[in-house]
Amino acid sequence: MKYFAGIDLGGTAAKVGLVNTDGEILKQVSVGIDNRDRFINIVTSIADVLAVMIRDTPGELTAIGIGAPGFVEEKTGVLLSGSENIPAMKGNSMPAHLNEKFGVPVFADNDATCAAAGELKFGIGVNYRSFVLITLGTGIGGGLVMDGRVYRGSRGFAGEIGHISLNANGIWCNCGTRGCFEQYASAPAIKRNYLEKCRKRGLKINDTVTAQEIFARAGEGDVFAEDAVDEAARAVARVFGILINLLNPEAFIIGGGVSRAGDLILNPVRRYLDDFAWPLLRRGVEVHIAALQNDAGLLGAAAQALERCSPTQEVG
Amino acid sequence: MKYFAGIDLGGTAAKVGLVNTDGEILKQVSVGIDNRDRFINIVTSIADVLAVMIRDTPGELTAIGIGAPGFVEEKTGVLLSGSENIPAMKGNSMPAHLNEKFGVPVFADNDATCAAAGELKFGIGVNYRSFVLITLGTGIGGGLVMDGRVYRGSRGFAGEIGHISLNANGIWCNCGTRGCFEQYASAPAIKRNYLEKCRKRGLKINDTVTAQEIFARAGEGDVFAEDAVDEAARAVARVFGILINLLNPEAFIIGGGVSRAGDLILNPVRRYLDDFAWPLLRRGVEVHIAALQNDAGLLGAAAQALERCSPTQEVG
Repeated sequence: MKYFAGIDLGGTAAKVGLVNTDGEILKQVSVGIDNRDRFINIVTSIADVLAVMIRDTPGELTAIGIGAPGFVEEKTGVLLSGSENIPAMKGNSMPAHLNEKFGVPVFADNDATCAAAGELKFGIGVNYRSFVLITLGTGIGGGLVMDGRVYRGSRGFAGEIGHISLNANGIWCNCGTRGCFEQYASAPAIKRNYLEKCRKRGLKINDTVTAQEIFARAGEGDVFAEDAVDEAARAVARVFGILINLLNPEAFIIGGGVSRAGDLILNPVRRYLDDFAWPLLRRGVEVHIAALQNDAGLLGAAAQALERCSPTQEVG
Repeated sequence: MKYFAGIDLGGTAAKVGLVNTDGEILKQVSVGIDNRDRFINIVTSIADVLAVMIRDTPGELTAIGIGAPGFVEEKTGVLLSGSENIPAMKGNSMPAHLNEKFGVPVFADNDATCAAAGELKFGIGVNYRSFVLITLGTGIGGGLVMDGRVYRGSRGFAGEIGHISLNANGIWCNCGTRGCFEQYASAPAIKRNYLEKCRKRGLKINDTVTAQEIFARAGEGDVFAEDAVDEAARAVARVFGILINLLNPEAFIIGGGVSRAGDLILNPVRRYLDDFAWPLLRRGVEVHIAALQNDAGLLGAAAQALERCSPTQEVG
């Protein structure tokens, strides 16, 4: 039996696991990361755990996939920026290190692109040749699947959907642009919008309210929560409309923490989508919640390695 | 010698020609179209001209490419809509008809996608594996090249860049969306903007001024013309920024009538681009004026057929 290793790098821990070609997780361990540690120590602790897993698993390790937040250069697997939570990772190549140790191909990729690969290989994406995945969470990420393959762009950085500028005079974003999508539909944006609405109407609201709770309140008829959700959904629909006109995809998949809201986010996005896309291109386009939820990071990391090892399919 | 036929369908005439694999036009004729005529008469008049050309040209016809404004369904070559100038074309398959007559593969495509294929095969695009072409003219069209291939989307409609919504509360567009890019940077948009600026300052300006003349006036220091050009360039830069963050391309190519303005459009677009793209992704991205100008339609139509006949390249 062939299997793949997946490493899902987070700020405080890395999920490390083995996944077979059917998307079944054979083994899974969380490895704590001290984010002030040196690169070699972090990568060694992950490699040691992985080595034990592989030793104890019959079959053959085919490749290793790494998912990381931020910008991963396609050719080198070096994390160039965007992963400020683990400073030691920046500029270092985990793939080169693991390749030397395990002797198999190692591929690193942005986590949202991994999520798209995960859905393509093991999730709802198996039904489509072209779709766009977005992760709605603390930030907004994106992954593109076109003609049956993950599209990474010229250097591996494609899919920064969260930084599409929706409003040239809008809220400033960390990236240096104004009015980025992320400022209108990420979990912190939904929270900020909700708190502002409440305060401006004189309601005292605890700062600790989460996006998840705001969705729950919207479901229970809290009008400010309804409006905050509605405005986020409208921003999502507008971005999907842009993507429909640009890429003519078959479907959208919504992942990330906010996707747990299910129909509360899905229904308004579907409804508003007609406002922002050319009718002929909008027709038949489906919007789904991601199939891989809690294991999306690990499965996605493995899936992108599997996808990159697969024989090139006919394109065009 | 192998050669390709190109047919560039316009509202009043079709350019018909033969092109070799180096992008040299071997023969070229303009065939008048009576846009109230029946489909069979239009296609027969084009086919008759083509038959004579082929008879008189040594070598072998490999394929026929057709470029048309509007939405061309990839599988059938049927023009679905967007070509209101020649009503008889709508819903009919010129490729099926010409394939029967000439016995070679016939491919139809949207004209801006053809222009991208033209640049990829015969123009500036030969230097890149991923770029986006836009045509700035009466409308705004787009064509995408990714990983060395033209990307057409799930049904052949990808690249409707002119209908990216830049402003949710902006000018209404014919497509049903508000604030479409086309409403801010097409030739009519530049003209409308210039006339409004002049009138609001009490200047009497002749309605017949063209976008080309406005660019000339901008070059001569007319401040209203400068502002109109500047605002259009800023809209172009904003769309390019969105595309950079989304697709991580190597380059942009500007074609269409407005591209004749050369540096007058190129320089402000390049300058403003920094405002709208993530610095890491923006770095190294080049912006060019299209290499194929007057023959872009014919060469593009032939190029997309050439591209679709080429063996599938390795992708990813």
